[in-house]
Amino acid sequence: DEAPAIPPLVSGCVSCHSADGNPLVAGVPIIAGQRADYLVSALKSYRSGSRSGGPADVMRHFSEELSDKDIEEIAAWFSTN
Amino acid sequence: DEAPAIPPLVSGCVSCHSADGNPLVAGVPIIAGQRADYLVSALKSYRSGSRSGGPADVMRHFSEELSDKDIEEIAAWFSTN
Repeated sequence: DEAPAIPPLVSGCVSCHSADGNPLVAGVPIIAGQRADYLVSALKSYRSGSRSGGPADVMRHFSEELSDKDIEEIAAWFSTN
Repeated sequence: DEAPAIPPLVSGCVSCHSADGNPLVAGVPIIAGQRADYLVSALKSYRSGSRSGGPADVMRHFSEELSDKDIEEIAAWFSTN
């Protein structure tokens, strides 16, 4: 298949952020090409709950189970897209 | 001067995000070309405090006094950069 394999971890992100991080969903940030270190810190904020309310709760749902290593892998995928 | 006038409102952002939204500071997100609707919702989350802890407190400091109109103007500036 031509499309690069999408890491299974990323599948949760795709519904809002699209596989390459250029979202079609309104109000969802572009994360394609975003800084990896920022994506890591944002995901950790969602995971820890230090971002709350509205979309943050959706993000917390998706990030709660992620390990630091998972977060690094997800951040690497979108930052290099 | 060649550089476009930077809206006074944006001056607070420049130290971390740079004038065009491509930060030189580690851990600071690229906001150049980010979706305006996302920037508006993020700024409102910082302003309301629904993002807290660490850098969120810095962002809250800068966004506390902003009106909705200010936020729209700042979001427009960086999203079109």
